[in-house]
Amino acid sequence: MNSASPPCTTVDQLATPAALVDLDVMHANLARVAEYATGHGLALRPHAKTHKAPGLAAEQRRLGAVGVTVATAPEAAVMAGAVDDVLVAYPPVDPGRIARLMALPPSVRLTVALDSEPALDRLSAAAAAAGRVVGVLVELDLGMHRTGVQTPADALALAHLARRLEPLEYRGVMFYPGHIRQHVDQQLADIERLGSELDGYLDALAAAQLPAQIVSGGSTPTLFHSHRLPRQTEIRPGTYIFNDRTTAAIGACAWRDCAYSVLATVISTAVPGQAVVDAGSKALNREDIRGAVDAPGYGALRDRPEVFVKAMSEEHGLLCLGGTDWQPRVGERVRIVPNHVCISVNLHPRIHGVRGDSIAHSWEVAARGWA
Amino acid sequence: MNSASPPCTTVDQLATPAALVDLDVMHANLARVAEYATGHGLALRPHAKTHKAPGLAAEQRRLGAVGVTVATAPEAAVMAGAVDDVLVAYPPVDPGRIARLMALPPSVRLTVALDSEPALDRLSAAAAAAGRVVGVLVELDLGMHRTGVQTPADALALAHLARRLEPLEYRGVMFYPGHIRQHVDQQLADIERLGSELDGYLDALAAAQLPAQIVSGGSTPTLFHSHRLPRQTEIRPGTYIFNDRTTAAIGACAWRDCAYSVLATVISTAVPGQAVVDAGSKALNREDIRGAVDAPGYGALRDRPEVFVKAMSEEHGLLCLGGTDWQPRVGERVRIVPNHVCISVNLHPRIHGVRGDSIAHSWEVAARGWA
Repeated sequence: MNSASPPCTTVDQLATPAALVDLDVMHANLARVAEYATGHGLALRPHAKTHKAPGLAAEQRRLGAVGVTVATAPEAAVMAGAVDDVLVAYPPVDPGRIARLMALPPSVRLTVALDSEPALDRLSAAAAAAGRVVGVLVELDLGMHRTGVQTPADALALAHLARRLEPLEYRGVMFYPGHIRQHVDQQLADIERLGSELDGYLDALAAAQLPAQIVSGGSTPTLFHSHRLPRQTEIRPGTYIFNDRTTAAIGACAWRDCAYSVLATVISTAVPGQAVVDAGSKALNREDIRGAVDAPGYGALRDRPEVFVKAMSEEHGLLCLGGTDWQPRVGERVRIVPNHVCISVNLHPRIHGVRGDSIAHSWEVAARGWA
Repeated sequence: MNSASPPCTTVDQLATPAALVDLDVMHANLARVAEYATGHGLALRPHAKTHKAPGLAAEQRRLGAVGVTVATAPEAAVMAGAVDDVLVAYPPVDPGRIARLMALPPSVRLTVALDSEPALDRLSAAAAAAGRVVGVLVELDLGMHRTGVQTPADALALAHLARRLEPLEYRGVMFYPGHIRQHVDQQLADIERLGSELDGYLDALAAAQLPAQIVSGGSTPTLFHSHRLPRQTEIRPGTYIFNDRTTAAIGACAWRDCAYSVLATVISTAVPGQAVVDAGSKALNREDIRGAVDAPGYGALRDRPEVFVKAMSEEHGLLCLGGTDWQPRVGERVRIVPNHVCISVNLHPRIHGVRGDSIAHSWEVAARGWA
């Protein structure tokens, strides 16, 4: 049903809700981070989970990215058509996921991060069966406490095994600083602590003749502190292409740097003190802004950031009018910047690239789903 | 990419994460509610937002449902191919949404609920242009405070206008008791209060020669109290076809009545006290269980409900192992019942209907998106 309508050329013609990206803001975001990475000698490998659109990964590559980062098999398959160097920053334990990775075109340079022997064994067996060289990064837990080995001894054991198991190639380490999400001005102590822990791992690996050629880290919240980890070789931010309300709230971008918004229509003003729009949890998605920032709700109006989404149902977003003189009318349209852009994009079949009220381009969110 | 793999015949063959529905449990859920509605003389009009699959709406119709409820235009378009009586329980203010509704096959009996004059004016103009009879329900706010008129005077004004504006047909009122979501044993006072308020509206409408032929209410949390509102003619539960962790937590179903789960693979056990699975916020979705119930996290294992999803990233679900002796291994598979099934189904391209480990049927989640 998603292709039933004729293509729209202006934002006015779009049915709501719809996912919009301001192209000028997006290109400035891309250029800013490409320049930062180049300036600090860091390889940039953007995470495609944010946009799930191969055309945008290709644009990142054109601006100097060394390749693309993915988590899922559809992300890998879709992105491999646009970018020939893919890091799967996720243990491909499920046999279906491994099979899809092995079926990527042989021309694609494939690297996989993982944290366990069972994952390594499965990958090794599949790579051998496919006759495919696969790079391996050992994932380290440097404070996120989600995945990643817990000690240098565990890292050494996995690295040793990865080097021994042909056709795998041990290439280094990966970590994700996802626990550092407070305001950028308050991140330095955590980043210093992470750096010390990282040094311990890297020194142990080097001492065991297993030096990490690739040290892959980075996130959008910590992006512009990346040079403070001098042994890091590569960063994997995803959100930075669009930014979102969380990124702005923690000072990792300005509000005007938020390129993505959800176009919505006011459908009811019956209940005093609020306006209801046709973008709810199935268009914006639900995620609080964590950390020490004062940004209630689930998103805010791009042009009136004091108006925030105070509550949602699946197809309803309730705008709090307590802090504004704006008196919305039924039928009026707004653009909402969600708290977390990656999980909002994932709900939309297409992203519309706009300049003002014109639609200049439109991308399919091609890598949704898993199978 | 979603159709690249050959069809699977057993659950073992599915790539994870994947959406499963236990067919025997689902059929028991459908039969139980159909019987309840029939027994109490209530028309059953299930909300299709839960499954977004026309085959399942047709099955509900076969079991006696009078039609289907939808919110979005794709839901209406997809369901109209399977069921010839559609209630749009959502003000179709956006011109794109109205246009899609007017394009439904003329054989479809169409009813729309709304709460404002602008919405009524737009609908009337579009219906006149399309030469289409459209039924109108006036939406009442009976405590949810989301949408709905606030006073009997407002309801009368809209009902008058709806009767006057051909080719619209005033048919009655709609409300959604979504604010009543505490444990079923504690709902009666709220339901009684709602009933009194409803009586006020219905009496005012009847006194003005605008009697409500249709009084449409009902939700899954309040489902089996529906007969306590004797002037209600129709109920619109959605979740009941699958149920979910919230429904079980408030006592509106038993745990064994949860038909839907997300199949996931354990991908890491590196961090002590937890296991990480490949179903996160992009497979389960994020919603707390509100109300006075003790059910932390975002979902729980179908076969070990004491193991819950304590945290999520987009592709990671962190299982809390604090309350179990279970020691999961990397590669092991689990089935997770999410807190809120409707927003989980919406993330999956397909639902697999299973009996034990066999896949008996598979439905496309056809009505995702909006355009």
